[in-house]
Amino acid sequence: MTRWVRFITAEGAPGMGALEGATIAEVRGASFTDAQSTGRRLALADVRLLSPCTPTKVIALWNNFRALGEKLGKAAPSHPLFLIKPATSVIGTAEPIRRPARYSGKIVFEGELGIVIGRECRNATVEEAGDFILGYTCVNDVTAAEIIAEDPNFPQWTRSKGFDTFSCIGPAITTDLDWAGARVVTTLDGVERQNYPLADIIFPPHEIVSRISGDMTLHAGDVIAVGTSIGVGSMKDGATVCVSIEGIGELRNTVVA
Amino acid sequence: MTRWVRFITAEGAPGMGALEGATIAEVRGASFTDAQSTGRRLALADVRLLSPCTPTKVIALWNNFRALGEKLGKAAPSHPLFLIKPATSVIGTAEPIRRPARYSGKIVFEGELGIVIGRECRNATVEEAGDFILGYTCVNDVTAAEIIAEDPNFPQWTRSKGFDTFSCIGPAITTDLDWAGARVVTTLDGVERQNYPLADIIFPPHEIVSRISGDMTLHAGDVIAVGTSIGVGSMKDGATVCVSIEGIGELRNTVVA
Repeated sequence: MTRWVRFITAEGAPGMGALEGATIAEVRGASFTDAQSTGRRLALADVRLLSPCTPTKVIALWNNFRALGEKLGKAAPSHPLFLIKPATSVIGTAEPIRRPARYSGKIVFEGELGIVIGRECRNATVEEAGDFILGYTCVNDVTAAEIIAEDPNFPQWTRSKGFDTFSCIGPAITTDLDWAGARVVTTLDGVERQNYPLADIIFPPHEIVSRISGDMTLHAGDVIAVGTSIGVGSMKDGATVCVSIEGIGELRNTVVA
Repeated sequence: MTRWVRFITAEGAPGMGALEGATIAEVRGASFTDAQSTGRRLALADVRLLSPCTPTKVIALWNNFRALGEKLGKAAPSHPLFLIKPATSVIGTAEPIRRPARYSGKIVFEGELGIVIGRECRNATVEEAGDFILGYTCVNDVTAAEIIAEDPNFPQWTRSKGFDTFSCIGPAITTDLDWAGARVVTTLDGVERQNYPLADIIFPPHEIVSRISGDMTLHAGDVIAVGTSIGVGSMKDGATVCVSIEGIGELRNTVVA
């Protein structure tokens, strides 16, 4: 189990490495999968973490947890239901979630598990899917909730979730995570708001990667946010949300007006 | 008025230039806007055209022409309604539209005008929007129509339109196009199926760029497909669809099983 991170040093130099406690063992390479050790170790406190990957797209699933589907009275889907959040929406831990200049309504957090793709993937079977997964991360799938149902004929999923800074990803990508034994815990200003078991998932990660790789080619670094469960809620300007999954870490972001 | 194209030579070398009749005046540069002439002229017949730009995302509008909205009984929206088609969906003229391996249903053509962004754009006003538009192109917004309404709770716009090869773009990017005086003409195996005036548009290009640049940052090369009007229909495997707009040219693609 490795926890990969990307960072910027105090001098402004970008880097990547494996997080080991409060230390980063630096590596160098075109990607985590072919990286070589530089021998250098940095203190986590001395760097600023970035999103651990740079997706070409973030695929966000809807209605993929039984508990939330039952609460909303929605039948389980027969194929993952998704929208695309653009690369411009991605930020890392500790970066601000910025309120859109032209939106004054409710902004909602959704704590989720994220699948990070390791290499180009197309029409993979469920059995093959694991070969294309680099690891797992935490996602806050931020949503301008009042936009979704604004038009009676067209639910605006993409617009409500696609704003700049609305895909918080990090702090690390954990390889070989036992996701089925893990829980997603989301706190709002320190108060627990979500705490749900990933075992309640409808389409598990390998099934998702197999099916979505038949819908579009997935690239290294692409992230699939597997959907949220009960407990989502709104964040006021100034609020801090922390999404954590044991084995990955804490993804913490503050809403800024 | 310049018609920018990207191409591959018979020797496999990529290039870009201005299309002048049956000749391409080659240029070189990081983008069309800062390109310098190489002095070389190539015969159009000697190269293979590519998509004239490489979008990070394609934004596709729904319900943006009065004639189609009236036919479907849908009120005009108060903001552009859109989804994102991934970069992996983009092909150029003469490239095949590939039937998805796991989909045997109806595949539909939608002839559209495409806006090509020239430089990074965020929160632009309508007055500023023109400065961020490089030019206009033709788009065939291909759609796996039977997927859209498959789930009763979530219209699958992104999935039905996001497959690889489902965003046909080209053949050229025309600067200073008088779009308001132009028509979109779509033929299926040589038979005219769409012929509608762009003047019937609900949100015109500058308004679209202004509004969507408030929803997300737009990058150079990004394409906004402004929506289609009446006459869309299905394409059988082997069918050839041609989308043409006077001043831009003919975008021609064949469906391959």
